[in-house]
Amino acid sequence: MDKLNWLGARQAAQGIRDGLFSSEDLVRACIEHIQAREPEVQAWAFFDPEHALGQARRADEWRAAGKPLGLLHGVPVGIKDIIDTGDMPTEDGTALHAGRTPWHDAKVVDLLRAAGAVIMGKTVTTELATYAPGKTRNPHNPQHTPGGSSSGSAAAVADGMVPLALGTQTNGSLIRPAAYCGVFGFKPSRGLISRQGILCQSAHLDQPGGFARSVEDLALLGEVLCVYDADEPGMVPRAGMPLQRVCDEQPPLPPKLAFIKTPLWPQADADVQDGFGELVEHLGEQVGEFVMPDSANQALDWHITIMEAEIASNYAADYARGGEKMSTSLREQIERGRNIKAVDYLEALARMPLVTEALDEVFDRYDAILTPAVPGAAPHGLDATGSPMFCTLWSYCGMPAISLPLLQAGNGLPVGVQLVGRVGDDARLLRTARWLVGLVA
Amino acid sequence: MDKLNWLGARQAAQGIRDGLFSSEDLVRACIEHIQAREPEVQAWAFFDPEHALGQARRADEWRAAGKPLGLLHGVPVGIKDIIDTGDMPTEDGTALHAGRTPWHDAKVVDLLRAAGAVIMGKTVTTELATYAPGKTRNPHNPQHTPGGSSSGSAAAVADGMVPLALGTQTNGSLIRPAAYCGVFGFKPSRGLISRQGILCQSAHLDQPGGFARSVEDLALLGEVLCVYDADEPGMVPRAGMPLQRVCDEQPPLPPKLAFIKTPLWPQADADVQDGFGELVEHLGEQVGEFVMPDSANQALDWHITIMEAEIASNYAADYARGGEKMSTSLREQIERGRNIKAVDYLEALARMPLVTEALDEVFDRYDAILTPAVPGAAPHGLDATGSPMFCTLWSYCGMPAISLPLLQAGNGLPVGVQLVGRVGDDARLLRTARWLVGLVA
Repeated sequence: MDKLNWLGARQAAQGIRDGLFSSEDLVRACIEHIQAREPEVQAWAFFDPEHALGQARRADEWRAAGKPLGLLHGVPVGIKDIIDTGDMPTEDGTALHAGRTPWHDAKVVDLLRAAGAVIMGKTVTTELATYAPGKTRNPHNPQHTPGGSSSGSAAAVADGMVPLALGTQTNGSLIRPAAYCGVFGFKPSRGLISRQGILCQSAHLDQPGGFARSVEDLALLGEVLCVYDADEPGMVPRAGMPLQRVCDEQPPLPPKLAFIKTPLWPQADADVQDGFGELVEHLGEQVGEFVMPDSANQALDWHITIMEAEIASNYAADYARGGEKMSTSLREQIERGRNIKAVDYLEALARMPLVTEALDEVFDRYDAILTPAVPGAAPHGLDATGSPMFCTLWSYCGMPAISLPLLQAGNGLPVGVQLVGRVGDDARLLRTARWLVGLVA
Repeated sequence: MDKLNWLGARQAAQGIRDGLFSSEDLVRACIEHIQAREPEVQAWAFFDPEHALGQARRADEWRAAGKPLGLLHGVPVGIKDIIDTGDMPTEDGTALHAGRTPWHDAKVVDLLRAAGAVIMGKTVTTELATYAPGKTRNPHNPQHTPGGSSSGSAAAVADGMVPLALGTQTNGSLIRPAAYCGVFGFKPSRGLISRQGILCQSAHLDQPGGFARSVEDLALLGEVLCVYDADEPGMVPRAGMPLQRVCDEQPPLPPKLAFIKTPLWPQADADVQDGFGELVEHLGEQVGEFVMPDSANQALDWHITIMEAEIASNYAADYARGGEKMSTSLREQIERGRNIKAVDYLEALARMPLVTEALDEVFDRYDAILTPAVPGAAPHGLDATGSPMFCTLWSYCGMPAISLPLLQAGNGLPVGVQLVGRVGDDARLLRTARWLVGLVA
């Protein structure tokens, strides 16, 4: 029983379903691991072991009563602290929101509870999900950043504290911490997951997702979360996606990957450049190099225009009543955002579908894009969270992206590899990712 | 046969269905009327009698072949010249787009053709649907403006040239010309009619609609046009609305109207103030005065912020290559728009649902809002199109609005009365409008 905390989400749910162990056994193992490791990792913004155990016991009673079990029955999940929970504080990584306890769960939390999950606690986020770090450290080496903004969620999953955790990405906030912490991170296509009850940083760019320790578990989590929500404006009614079924399939033909270095390639360090060199060589004919259309190169500027204008708008009230309590980096972002012209903002928005369309031809010949997730392993130091630059384009376009912990830096730290799919082809992207992991492992 | 052009759309469609006259008879009567009156009214930007007659003959052949007939089979409709037609030029009221002939019909034109309508021609719009007038004159007195921007459509219906015509409203471009020309104008709730293939002035504010000579015909036109279009982002799948059926019903209780003067009331002239005084007195207990919530008073500024920022963005290419060919008023609008900050634009957008919600309590006690459509009768002169100020708030909120030609100015020109409904309650608004017309007539 003493290694239950390292089980994947699917195995854990299956074990509980089959009566091999109880949800209480599992949650207790996770709590003990958290209590041992938290002083070093500091992944949690809010953690009440009794509250988690209470949920686990109710899950066990539910099963004992012979009631139907959800996909995540009895499985603990960590929640980034910008996602509302009706039974725990949600403080958004800022002293300005200290003590904030919402009345309602965010839609994603609601979906997790409906699937039977135990909400384990709230994981550390950077300040208002921007750049100023929280207290979390990289579980592989506490002198290195875990990345951000979904710092605590990535670290908690990497360290075996929970099998699953939720995060969000506006620029690189899921893929980057996944790559630095050596876990699997998944940012589904824009619009597949409801943001109702999640801190709004940038309405056009915020995209929820999560972390796991396998591609299969990402598919399970995605299947629970990708559900139409009539309360989210702009979300279009659609049936749930069969992410697990397609993910588990053998691809009908060996997938082909488009290796895209992007114009940022010279900024990737030797660990990344050499690692990709070996990976591409290993994959042989399954990989072709693809040069991005010019329009995509400007996307980084357009992304920043949208993000900073929307941050300045969304955080205006906080800035007005407590700007002096904000980090310098956030204040500067807001001040830059306040000066952006509406016409420039609207142009940056108008380019989104055009850039996405220009990239679409990749998928006529390739199953997925293979590209760096980060410019190198997690940087030394805890005063910054590393660069999101290799994530920006895919966030701007709303394309689904996965980080796979397939490389290692010279210093032993993990380095993620990023796979990116066509908008809406999330199931195929998961299947391709599972194939790639099987081939490299 | 010589008064067929004055038939309403329902009567005309019924007559053709019953074989009382042919579509060719009807269209020929309209053509003759246009040819007689067009030198004075100048409602048409493009008009080819042979092309219209060809469509009418095909409609008659279709009926003779015993095929099923649409709601507007054989009935001619005028189309504002910012709405694309694949078989006629669409020049948007500007020399910059002279000769522009789209490959495809706009979705609304497609829907009209599917309902059997004859596309009679393109009606005059102001410059790019903004303020600088086209050539059209008020059919009641050619020295007065017909209003704008849907100038030709309102004038053509008022003058008996066609029973129906399409327009669009971003600020007051349907309700104002309807009120000035003495016809019935209808701007359905935002999001009910596809804008695909229509010139985009302001994505958040542009709202299509139309003109007729009765409320019943507005319901017919609305029923043909309010159809979900998957190609329009943000439109949500929904069944068609039973606008005709509900419009024709007797209200279950005598409707109550909320008379809202708005803070602009002092700017209404004596014709309007006295006319409303008599109308309210005539309606007695069916009317209560309602004072707007404070938040609604600021909506006029927010509306202008959104509109000018989006005009500056959408017309940027035209401005760059031909700003000197634009009117001074449009150039100034664009130049103001270019200086609007993204944060102010985003604040104006964020207030929209809040203002709409604040106004919603009206409908707990009242069926519709009764309010001026215009500050007075059509002004003298053809160098401006009058003020849209009494339409702005309802356009901003996306509430359905109807102009009814119930008042008359001292100089004999018509003056519209505006009824406004709850978002989505378009059918009830039409029913209330029909009741009011019956009561006053």
